[in-house]
Order: sequence, then C-alpha cells, then structure tokens
Amino acid sequence: MIGPRPTTIVRSVRLSERLDATIAIASEAFQWTGSFKFRAASNVVRSIPHPAVITASSGNFGQAMAYACRLAGKRCTVVMPANSAHVKIAAVRDYGARVDLVDTATVRREDRVAELAAADASAYVASAYDDVLVIQGNATLGRELAAMNAQAKTAPRDGAAGSASPGPFDAIIAPVGGGGLAAGILTGLRDAGDPTPVWAAEPAIANDLVQSLAAGRIVAHDREPQTIADGVRTRSVGVHTWAVLQPGLAGALEVSEAEIREGLRLCFHLANLKVEPTGAVTVGAMLAAAQRFRGQHVCCIASGGNVDPQVFWDIIGGHSEHSAPARTSVSP
Amino acid sequence: MIGPRPTTIVRSVRLSERLDATIAIASEAFQWTGSFKFRAASNVVRSIPHPAVITASSGNFGQAMAYACRLAGKRCTVVMPANSAHVKIAAVRDYGARVDLVDTATVRREDRVAELAAADASAYVASAYDDVLVIQGNATLGRELAAMNAQAKTAPRDGAAGSASPGPFDAIIAPVGGGGLAAGILTGLRDAGDPTPVWAAEPAIANDLVQSLAAGRIVAHDREPQTIADGVRTRSVGVHTWAVLQPGLAGALEVSEAEIREGLRLCFHLANLKVEPTGAVTVGAMLAAAQRFRGQHVCCIASGGNVDPQVFWDIIGGHSEHSAPARTSVSP
Repeated sequence: MIGPRPTTIVRSVRLSERLDATIAIASEAFQWTGSFKFRAASNVVRSIPHPAVITASSGNFGQAMAYACRLAGKRCTVVMPANSAHVKIAAVRDYGARVDLVDTATVRREDRVAELAAADASAYVASAYDDVLVIQGNATLGRELAAMNAQAKTAPRDGAAGSASPGPFDAIIAPVGGGGLAAGILTGLRDAGDPTPVWAAEPAIANDLVQSLAAGRIVAHDREPQTIADGVRTRSVGVHTWAVLQPGLAGALEVSEAEIREGLRLCFHLANLKVEPTGAVTVGAMLAAAQRFRGQHVCCIASGGNVDPQVFWDIIGGHSEHSAPARTSVSP
Repeated sequence: MIGPRPTTIVRSVRLSERLDATIAIASEAFQWTGSFKFRAASNVVRSIPHPAVITASSGNFGQAMAYACRLAGKRCTVVMPANSAHVKIAAVRDYGARVDLVDTATVRREDRVAELAAADASAYVASAYDDVLVIQGNATLGRELAAMNAQAKTAPRDGAAGSASPGPFDAIIAPVGGGGLAAGILTGLRDAGDPTPVWAAEPAIANDLVQSLAAGRIVAHDREPQTIADGVRTRSVGVHTWAVLQPGLAGALEVSEAEIREGLRLCFHLANLKVEPTGAVTVGAMLAAAQRFRGQHVCCIASGGNVDPQVFWDIIGGHSEHSAPARTSVSP
C-alpha cells in the first residue's frame, strides 16, 4: 500500500511581498485525494486489523478513507448528508466507497454510523480527528517540515528573493478545527527535535480553541459554527488533540471570514494555487496578524484544495485588488 | 543568483481514471514567476555580459525576464501592448521591470524594441523562444524528467493506483508555440541519454507545426492564430527550435479549442490545479489522442498558471461533467 505524498512547497515572490514576510505554502491540495486527510486515513487503515471501515464525513476525510481502503482492499462505508454537494458524493464513490446518504433533518449521522456498526461487527468506526492513529498519520507532515528545516540550516538564506530550499521556518501556521492536523504537525516536529513555533489559525466565528487556551480546558460551541471554512466547522477540539495542542502551541490566531476569503484570492492570483477555504485560513492569518510575523520566514499550511466550484467562484469573483477587471486598457 | 525551481509533479487518481492512462502533470505554475519561462530567462540573464535587457512580451516571458534581471541586478524593459490586461502589466512591474506600452495599432512591437535598442547600445534584445540560450535554459526541465525516469526505473510500478515515484514515463507531451519548451525538453532528455518519446501538442487552429512536419520545412501562419491558448499564438516555430524539433519529436497532436477548455476544467476539478489555457493543451491532447496513449504512463507538461481571472472563469463556468451544479441533492 502506498503512503502519503510529500507536501508541495509553493513559494511566490509576489505573495511574500504582499504579506511582508517570506511565505512558503505547504500545499496538501496535491496529496492523494486532495487534502492532508489521506495522511491520517492511510495510517488508520494500515494500523487496524479490521476488513471494513465506517465513517461519517461530508468532506475530505470520506474521500481519503475511501481511497485508503481501496488501496488496502478493505470495504468502506461513508455516511453523508443526503443534501451534500453532488461533486462530493461523486468523489467518494469514485474512490470506491459505498455512500450511505442520511436525511440529517430526521437522523443524526452518528446514530446512523452506530446502526451500521451494530450490523457489521467486523467494521472499524473511524473518527476524522480525535484518534491517536489520526494524529500519528498527520505527524508525517511534521516530520517533513522538520527535515526541510534541518536541510535549510546548512544552506545560506537570501531573504525575500527566495533561496533554493524552503526553510528554515521561523513559524508554522496550521488551520485548526478538531485539531488533528496541528497536533500531528507538533508531534512530528517535536519527535524530530525541532522546536519551531506552531501557531493555530481558526475562524474568528469558530474560535473555540482561543477560548479553550484562555480557559485552560476544552470549550465547545453549542452548535457547528457556519464559517466558510467548512473543514473546521467542529464544535471543539478533541480530547487527544487537546492533550498535544495545549502544551505545544505557540498560540492561536483568529481570522475573520473576510480575511479567509482574501487569503484564498491571494493564493489564487499571486501563487497560482487552488486552495479550499479551510486551506486559506492560514494565509488569512498572515493578514490578521501581519505585525507579529513581519519579516519572518513563515510556513502556511494549506490543508487541501477540494472545494465546491460555485463556492470557489463566489469568492474569486468578489472584490480584491488582485482580481481587477480583466482586459482593461490602461494609459501609460 | 537563484536558478529555476524543480518542476512540481502532480498526480491524481481521478484524472488518470478519466483519461484511461496514468497521468503525471509536470506543473510549471509554481516555477518562479508562474511559468516555465523563468528557466529560459534566468539562463539568458546569467549568460550575457550586458547590464540591460529589452524584450517584447505581453505574457509570461516578460514577467520571467523582469524577475531574472532583478535577481541579477540588471535593468529590464518590457515592451507591451497598451491594451494588455491590467493584471499582466502589474505583474511585470511587481517584478521590477520598466514597462513600455505601445499602441500596437500604430506601432509594431518589434519596431519599438529596435528603437529602444538603438538608444541603448548596452542592452541585449531577448527573444522569447528562438535563441539557443532559451533552449538551453528550458533543457533544465528535460534533465529533471530524465532524472525521474532513471530513479523510477529502479522502483516497482503499481499502475493507476500510483507509485511513490512519478516515472518512468512512456511518453511526454509538451505544448508548442515557438517551440522553445519542447526543444528544451528534448535537448535535456537526450543529453541525459533518455530516449522517452516527446510529443508536441498544439491547438488545431494553430497547427503550423503539424503542417511543418508534413512539409519537411517551417510553415508559418499568415497572422497569429487566435486560439484561447495565448501562449502559443506564434506564427511558426523558430529556426533554432525547428532544428531540434524536426528530428527529435515523436509527432505533433492537434487539440481543439473545446478540448483545451475541457483539459483546463479537468485539471481544476480532478487535480486541484490552476493552469493557464496554454498549460491545458497537453491534457487536452490526452482527450484528442486518447486511443494512442491508453494505459500508458504519460507526463503532460503544464507550462504555466498565469491567467486572466475572467478568462479562467469563463472556462470553468462552462459545461463540464465535473462542474455540475453545486449543492444539488441527489437521491440514494
């Protein structure tokens, strides 16, 4: 069975100049199935003896688990809301999983998962984030970043113009919903002896981690916050991820919805990158916390690239200094 | 001065299955300045003693030369049509060049270049493709592909599911306008002793290379063909590139405008890639010549990612099986 692909580091002179820092985007949009979730899914699948997996996901984890199971020759069932975007359902099916659609107005997804699990004792019920196997899988990205740092420290730096190697990073920013990605990155870095500060970025309207860090305990939203970054619409971080995040993070940054949108536009226009809104939260954090990172070498994790085309276009078509009307002639 | 970045290999299971072949996209959208042109520009700049460069370009070569000159501390003037897209003019200026706008209805660009060159004897006049320094610069990509082939031949292949390394390739497809990229790839491969067949892909409405290969001599269009792939709107290949292409190519593939558009959509929806229309010609060629490459391992060169946002959206918003209406609920 194949493992995760290495992350893709993208550097753009114009993006760096726009953000007053040297930016390296670690894009997971080219990971198998288009998001970092394959790192976790493949680790779960290879670690369990079960011949089948059941999971609830309307997004990237479902695609990742579907493909990981296919590669391993295991059965996979993904419980999805019946009103999920057609393209998301098609993707999970393309990767070979059985899609179980539920009307979430009448049946809770976790209840349907429990029902399916009761009917198949051989199946493993997989959580998208609060699982040590998930953190362990995502730690592969932390180890990759640590290796870049180690390699770059032997080479000279030349600032904004860009050097041949992407590190060393003064800071790493990762989006946080359930916390599986950030916890994995922290784990991978620290296992490699790399002390680079890791910052969490979360939508300001979904700032449960900021609240949790302030309170010293997990604070949960009453309901899923409706941020445009649909990959981080979790009510709180998990128990396993909190155990890594609380002592490990340098801090958490709040990003407005407008900054997330502008982050996505900057990636598209200045770095030729297609990222999903959740993947743009970290570049949005550079706008939100510009003063903190000015002049630093920052690695922004773009967690994935799978996005509903209409959502993407609604954002790209919006106002931006970089999406000025096309074909306008200008006077010299 | 820094050199070119290695190309970015992107593989997508869904794209490969859609095209009935194992596809690796070699994306140059993340090259410095967003296209392969930086390979040539940086080689030109490092090879000449001149303290200044003058070139005519409304597109990627201008941005690449601007940045290459900036890195080398040389002056750069880019002659552009006054009605160029605002975003393209802004990009060349961002990279530090002086933009010289000409009203192409009254003054030919080459005349303006000659005028500027006459006024500055210290300046080198750079051609975007018909220059041995350009071919030599683009050969860096050929050498990278040869290295992947060599590395992959020592590792087992596992078909459509994807192996850890991207090669070896049964065929490489490159877009051809002036021919600088394809000639460079051929040169780099053959210098490394790699015999992998290289196919040219060109818009059917700009098929001067197909005609030239049939005639055994360079055939030129009367005027620039108005293909959507604006990077290959050249009247013919060059003398230097023809000398490499004629004996070296496996053949040339004609791609319809509709196939170019669908290629761009497939890259976006199935591989999370932003490519410019010219960069999508090679994936379009996989649609045009599906039978020829069925089941093979094919490397499609995506030459760049810089595209007028409105042009991009006009294509993405068009019909595709992969751009079905979003948020449609489907019955189980």
